[in-house]
Formats: sequence, C-alpha cells, structure tokens
Amino acid sequence: MNNTCVALSGGVGGAKLALGLQAVLQPGQLQVIVNTGDDFRHLGLPISPDVDTLVYTLTDLANPQTGWGLRDETWQFMEQLERLGGASWFRLGDKDLAMHLRRATLLDSGLSLTEVTAELSRRLGVITRVLPMSDTPAPTQIHTTEGLLEFQDYFVRQQARPTVTGIAYTESAAPSPAVQAALDSDELQAIIVTPSNPWLSVAPILSLRGFRSSILRRTRPVVAVSPIIAGAAVKGPTAKIMQELGMQPNSLAIAEFYTGLIDGLVIDRRDSPQQAAIEALGIPVRLSDTLMNTLEDKTRLAAEVLEFAADLRASAV
Amino acid sequence: MNNTCVALSGGVGGAKLALGLQAVLQPGQLQVIVNTGDDFRHLGLPISPDVDTLVYTLTDLANPQTGWGLRDETWQFMEQLERLGGASWFRLGDKDLAMHLRRATLLDSGLSLTEVTAELSRRLGVITRVLPMSDTPAPTQIHTTEGLLEFQDYFVRQQARPTVTGIAYTESAAPSPAVQAALDSDELQAIIVTPSNPWLSVAPILSLRGFRSSILRRTRPVVAVSPIIAGAAVKGPTAKIMQELGMQPNSLAIAEFYTGLIDGLVIDRRDSPQQAAIEALGIPVRLSDTLMNTLEDKTRLAAEVLEFAADLRASAV
Repeated sequence: MNNTCVALSGGVGGAKLALGLQAVLQPGQLQVIVNTGDDFRHLGLPISPDVDTLVYTLTDLANPQTGWGLRDETWQFMEQLERLGGASWFRLGDKDLAMHLRRATLLDSGLSLTEVTAELSRRLGVITRVLPMSDTPAPTQIHTTEGLLEFQDYFVRQQARPTVTGIAYTESAAPSPAVQAALDSDELQAIIVTPSNPWLSVAPILSLRGFRSSILRRTRPVVAVSPIIAGAAVKGPTAKIMQELGMQPNSLAIAEFYTGLIDGLVIDRRDSPQQAAIEALGIPVRLSDTLMNTLEDKTRLAAEVLEFAADLRASAV
Repeated sequence: MNNTCVALSGGVGGAKLALGLQAVLQPGQLQVIVNTGDDFRHLGLPISPDVDTLVYTLTDLANPQTGWGLRDETWQFMEQLERLGGASWFRLGDKDLAMHLRRATLLDSGLSLTEVTAELSRRLGVITRVLPMSDTPAPTQIHTTEGLLEFQDYFVRQQARPTVTGIAYTESAAPSPAVQAALDSDELQAIIVTPSNPWLSVAPILSLRGFRSSILRRTRPVVAVSPIIAGAAVKGPTAKIMQELGMQPNSLAIAEFYTGLIDGLVIDRRDSPQQAAIEALGIPVRLSDTLMNTLEDKTRLAAEVLEFAADLRASAV
C-alpha cells in the first residue's frame, strides 16, 4: 500500500480523529496504533478498553453518548452480576461482553493480541488496521496522593478523582511486530498524534522500548492535534491532570510536552493567542476547529491535519 | 436440624420434585445432592448445568419453557459472540452468564464448588441447601456408535442423537465433605431419588467413591420416583437411551436398575400393570400421578413420596 499514515490513539478523542482519517484515506492507508496501557484483567477477562473503542468507533457501533461501549447496549448481565455479589464498578454490557470472552478464547488459543484484534476487527467489518501498541502487557500505573493505583482503579473506579503526582509507564515492553513494521515502512508518509490524553493515552505508546527512536529515525512529519480547547479538555481529565502535574492546561503546555517529537501542532482557533509561543518552540502551528461532534467535523479536521502534514513534508524537502 | 431429607437430582425432572419437597418440608430440612457429571468448561467458564437448574428452579427463576436457564432471559451476548465467530452451540443467556463468571471468580479465589454454590444460592435467596455431588471434577463421558463423546458434546451439541453404547462415570472422585456429612447425619430420615435420568444424572452421583456404601450403611428408606410414564420419558432422552442400552423403556427396568439401592419405587398410575413385577424384585411400589406440571403437582407428589418413605421406615422398625 502506498502512502500510508499512522495514527497514535487512546480512546474517545483519538477514535474520533481516526474515524475522520479513515473517511479521508483509502482503505488500507490508515493504521492506528492504540494504547494498551489501560488494559487489565477483570472478572477473569482480558479487557482492552482503547482497542475496543477504536474498533467500535471505526464501525459506527460505538455508543455516542458515553464514548465507550456499544450503542443499543443492554445490561442484563451486569444487573445479575451485582445481584450475585460481583464487582460492578467496571460496566460490561451484554454485547460488549462477547468481545472480551472471544478475546480470551483467542488469546488462550495462542494468538497474539495483534492477531486477536485483527480477527475481531474483521468480524465486525473494520476496514482500518487497528494495532495494539504491544503484544506484551504494558500497564500504566498512576501515582496519586492516595497511593499508587492501577489505571482502571484510578480512571474508572475512582473516576479520576485522586490527585495525580506522577505516572509510571511500562518502558520495558516492546512495540508489537506489526507496529514496528508500520513505523519502519518506506511507504509511511505521516504520523498523526490524535487528541487523546497525552499523559494517559499517548505517553504509554511513546514510552515503549525503542518507539520514539523508531519515529525519529526518519524524516516523516509527525503532527499532533492538541486535546485542549480554550483551557479545557473536550472530555476526560486531561486539564485536571495537567494542573495536578504543575502545568497550565493549554496548548502551549501540550506543545512543550511533545517538543522533540512533533513537527507540527494543530490547535483550535480559540487558542490562536498561543500560536506565537508555540512556534517559538520551533513547532509550526495550524489553526483549525478541533471540536469533533459530527462526522463532517471529524472528516474536515482529518483532511486539514493530513494537508498540514503534506505541507510540512514539502517544506522539509 | 431434625428429620432431614436428602434428594439426589440431575436437572429438570429432579429440580421439579426438589421444588415440591422444598414446599412440603421446613426450611433447612431438605438437602439436594446434585449431579456435576455434566459440568464442563465452556468459553473458559466453569458451567454447572444441573446445579444452576436446581438453584433457578428452587427460586422460581427458571425458564418454565426450556427447563434450563432463566425466565425473561435475553440473548444479546450470544448474538454478538456468534458475530465474532465464537461457539454458539451451548446457549448462555445474558443473565445466566453472570452466574458462570461469578462462579469462576469465586472458584479462582480458592473456594470449593460447594462453597461457591452456597454463596450464589444465598445471593439468589435459595432456602434449600444445594450440594454439588463433588468438589472434584467428575465428568461423565458417553460411548456412542460415533465414538467417545464429552457429555455436553453428546447432550447439547449433538442433541442426544448418537446411539449410546455405554456410559463412563468418574468413579475416582469422592463426594464432597458436605455431601458426606448429609449422608452420615443421624438426623437423615429419607433419601429420595428424583425422577432425573437414572443413567445420565443419578448414576454419576451413585458412582462416586464410597457413595453407595454411605447410603446402604444405615437403615434409612431410599425411595425413587420413576422417570418413565407409559413407556416414555417426560422430557429428555431417557427412553431413547434405555432402548439403546437394550432395555424396555418402562418402570420395571428402572426398578431393576435401582435394585439393591432403593427400598421403594413410586410409579405412575398408568404403569400399574408393572406393579406386581416390580414388587417381585422385592421393591414395594406406590402408585401416584408422577407428571409434574403445576406447583400443586410437585407438592402433592413430594408429599406422597415422603409419606411413602415414612411408611417404609415404620414398617422396617
């Protein structure tokens, strides 16, 4: 496949842009590298929240209200499990549960998480390659004022309420062979860092052994989209975490975090006052409307991001 | 608890009589020893079909149409699993699935199947003690003209179509401590063999190491209810299997199978022509209406069975 594009993504925000990229690009051109730092075993099942959000979003099966899980979901299992004294803090819908049980069966049969994801994606009709960042467990752990927490304990059970003091990534895990191949491909034209939470969703990917150097080894534009609009995150605790880690919740701080990695940053027009400060870091800025509600929003933003990447590529020649 | 009663049961037919016995006896008087020869792992989950049928029937949660599973069940999980390429021959409803996942979690925590069943029973409000026959796996295997089959492969996947040539029980497994205590109790007044399939559901219990001798060691009436009415089984393949194993499908053959174990047999009035032949085996017969449709049917039959046992006990003194 000529002219491939790789996107780095966590859950909701990243999936929205991935859907836009999928709409703009040809089938097969897009590969999405997905955070698995949130993965965990729950009720004995292997749960990959961000991978599933990608798969569901790219097939229009996602629940548009929650951002996670499936639309038209039912909750009979969960209600009965509660009645039986089971843990109910992590909600698993009846249909969604099939994904986790099927994943368990396929993993037990000896397939890698990458192979399992390919099979589940194929069954659901995903046209984009969804690549778990690693076939090795690489759990993210959250240091908080209430102690060290497993990711989902912090994120779901405690609803991101504890104050974050630091984040520990599994730096010993290697990218999967498929991820490595995507990054090493001569056809790769651009790497898009989607507006997922940089600390919780993108950094686990960047922290994998050799990942950053695989990106930087060659000259291909890396373009990020800032998840912050006018001092707030569209969804989730990004702004809260930035403040807890001593940052201003704005696109300049996002640019600083990605300095040395990205060749350009897309920020919302509302943040144009920060453009000069970001460009002073040596990072070209493109203004856009980064709020993605409709499919049109996503497609338009994706097109602008790809155009920005193409412009950066042209200017680098 | 004074004057306890033990019932041996498989799934549907046994559960019906157990419900009747529960209605007649005081809370705590009844203990049901349940076949686990049908138990298997499916989709990575520990499934105990007969135990669950008992629990669901005794709490009026059972599906009256199928005899297995829960009433008002939904099937979102199963439909999605099929879509994902998962095995769908063994149907697991959304609510029922909670039972299996919860059982898995509790077993993994180190509890025995007996303890897990007690906990699940308590959560669902079962007032009767439901005792899995063994805490050790004791799978029943079916020899057929199509080869040796795992129980659920024969019974559900192939819908009991293959011709049975023999049945292999796990005779090395021991009764659970709770089952042994129930059998050894001085308070035990009667043992009721419910009209579950003698070969598929009762024989696995009787085949446990030391089970038969525990029953026969003391003088307490053992009363069975024939599952055959007018040459046919109420439900399931009992009559078919009897023919395949070279027997006439009638209550006389049931009596012959239980000879040496039981002190009395309850048969349907429609089978009264066989009464003399059964009594010639040394087994007293009580005629009754053994078809159990309504709760009244079950309660009446249970009362008659207990009365029969009391009469046998009195006549033995």
